[in-house]
Order: sequence, then C-alpha cells, then structure tokens
Amino acid sequence: MVKYHHSLDATFAALGDPTRRSILTTLQRGQASVTELVRPHKISMPAIMKHLGVLEQAGLISQQKIGRVRMCRLTVAPMQQAADWLSLYRVFWENQLDSLEKFLNQPQQEELDPCRKPSPRQPSSHKPRHRHS
Amino acid sequence: MVKYHHSLDATFAALGDPTRRSILTTLQRGQASVTELVRPHKISMPAIMKHLGVLEQAGLISQQKIGRVRMCRLTVAPMQQAADWLSLYRVFWENQLDSLEKFLNQPQQEELDPCRKPSPRQPSSHKPRHRHS
Repeated sequence: MVKYHHSLDATFAALGDPTRRSILTTLQRGQASVTELVRPHKISMPAIMKHLGVLEQAGLISQQKIGRVRMCRLTVAPMQQAADWLSLYRVFWENQLDSLEKFLNQPQQEELDPCRKPSPRQPSSHKPRHRHS
Repeated sequence: MVKYHHSLDATFAALGDPTRRSILTTLQRGQASVTELVRPHKISMPAIMKHLGVLEQAGLISQQKIGRVRMCRLTVAPMQQAADWLSLYRVFWENQLDSLEKFLNQPQQEELDPCRKPSPRQPSSHKPRHRHS
C-alpha cells in the first residue's frame, strides 16, 4: 500500500508540469530520441534531461541508449494507476452533475414565486401567463 | 488553452501528496469541518490548513465559514478534467496490454525452437509428442 501511495505521489507530481505532459503526448505516437523531444520545446538540453529524469523516476517513461542515441519510450502502468485512482471519484462527480442538471431543468415558476403552494408536476414548456388587469 | 494547462498543473501537483488525496477521499463521503479532517491524520492544524490551501487553490475543494466552523466540500470539475486528460492515453495502454496478452498467448513451441520452419496454425492444446527411440 505504501509503495502504491509512493508511486501515485511520483506520478501525479510528474504530471503537474506542461512540458512533461507534452513529452508524454509525443511519446504516445511512438518512441523518440532525446533530440526529437527537445525540438518542439523551447528549452535547453539540460532542462529536457531533467524532465526526462523526473518522468523516468515516476516510471512513466523508460530510456535506452542505442549506440550514441538515447531513446525514450512511454510506459503505461503508472498512468493507468492514476486513472484508476481518479475513477473512484467518477460516481461522485456524475451524481453532482445529475443534481445540477435536475436543478437547471426544474420549472422556473417555482423559482420566481417561492411562496406558491406545490402543485402537480407540469411540463417545463413556457406558457404565457394571464395578468390581472 | 493556457488556463486549461494551468489548472491541470495545479490539479496534478495537488494530487501528488498522500495527505491531500486522503482529505479528498474523506470529502467524497460529504462535506466536513477542518477539525473532522485533522482527526485521522497525525499532523498539526497549521499543516492541514496548508494542505487545504493547496487543494482550494487547485479548485479541488471549497471552504466556507459557518459561524465558527470552517466547512470543506469537494468540487468535481478539476478532477474530471484530470481524468479526461489521462483517458487520452487509455487507447495507448489498452493496445500495449493487448500486445502483451498476444505475446503471452503465442504457442511456446516457437519460443523454444526459433529455427523451426513456420507450420500451419495448430490448436494450442498440448498433445503428447512422440520421441525417437
């Protein structure tokens, strides 16, 4: 359990940076060299190496040296674990959205006239009201 | 787009701490006072207030003072946004798992005897092999 917590800590912390998320998006299309990963970002090679180190420590990528080229590859398990953790809250937010939808769909009449006695449910279409003259 | 990035940064960074995730788990059951949130964690009131500040800044909770009691409540949008971002990778990890499953299910014969010529597909059930005597 501690290890699970620890890896979730590292995963979420690593994902909390736009450059690192962008690197992961690039690697989703397939493995890439460090030079290829530097190109789209306007940052130095040492800076990108630091980001790659954080991603590797979190287990989100693996690096392999092939000759003189360092290749990076996305690994799936930590991201799946993070998604699993967030999915525990899906029921909660779906309930909240349902409540919001119900609130927005309730007849406006009740909101405008809170002292009005409850009446049998009416369709929500707007009908012109008769004014007392 | 910049705002979306910014809020994802704050959301993932806030989720990268076990105490803050534990607070969110508690709040999933309903709103709670700060005193109720301190109880299960062996940390000081100032420390919990700091965590609540980070969660509030990320928009993951809202705080409201009712009389002398500060109540906290979970808000769903940022967590849903984080889940949406991770779900973009679902196709990738499902493909990887499919490949792994295919690899594990391929007939062991091919792995044991790589020089063997390809033969017509055979059922995977094990049949006793005749030994040359």
